[in-house]
Amino acid sequence: MTGMSEDAKRLLNEPEYAVLATVEPDGRPQLSVVWIARDHEDVLVSTVRGRRKERNLRRDARATLLVYPADNPQEYLEVRGAVSIEDDPSGSLIQALSQKYTGEPFTEDEGTDHERVIVRLRPEHVVHRRGS
Amino acid sequence: MTGMSEDAKRLLNEPEYAVLATVEPDGRPQLSVVWIARDHEDVLVSTVRGRRKERNLRRDARATLLVYPADNPQEYLEVRGAVSIEDDPSGSLIQALSQKYTGEPFTEDEGTDHERVIVRLRPEHVVHRRGS
Repeated sequence: MTGMSEDAKRLLNEPEYAVLATVEPDGRPQLSVVWIARDHEDVLVSTVRGRRKERNLRRDARATLLVYPADNPQEYLEVRGAVSIEDDPSGSLIQALSQKYTGEPFTEDEGTDHERVIVRLRPEHVVHRRGS
Repeated sequence: MTGMSEDAKRLLNEPEYAVLATVEPDGRPQLSVVWIARDHEDVLVSTVRGRRKERNLRRDARATLLVYPADNPQEYLEVRGAVSIEDDPSGSLIQALSQKYTGEPFTEDEGTDHERVIVRLRPEHVVHRRGS
């Protein structure tokens, strides 16, 4: 428990895009834009086995996530912690995220043989800046 | 020269917010929302001496920047490279950025004794994904 504020939880509930940072083998940060869901104080991200962020996280579980309202980037929430990775063969999370962000079911590209996984980020350090 | 495309340069010219990742002393990524300017293929960020990103970059010059259109996050540009830091006592860059993003001059908080610096990111690796 990091004592995440109710305001921070509300921001995670909104369909705002987030940026997830993982650590490259050489130590550089690697960034990608992600959809996020909240499970209590954990942040959930759906990805696919073999993608760069997934390979990075299996080697080094430390991740940092930044989310801010598109219409007010002065407010932001930075969450640092370690992730665990769970299989998601039915794609349950990507479907829930697609509904949250687009209101539509998610369609994987045709012909792909994706193995969906759930990245669960457990916050160890949270900064919520509300802007001026 | 990384051969940054004209499309990538155009995206950097737009007043879109970017996320800058630096490396914490313990190796974790540290993220912040920044305004950016472009100088040829370099990306410029204004910050203040002593801030976390500035301290991180003086210790480890490697940085990653992600920028995407607020109205189309499927398109994104990731720039990785090393930074140099220059003094900017007159705050010339923060003034130019404020004009670019808000159309107004920038006003530092009253009573602050900020030493503005310019972070110049020289791209070594660029990924521009145009979305689907």
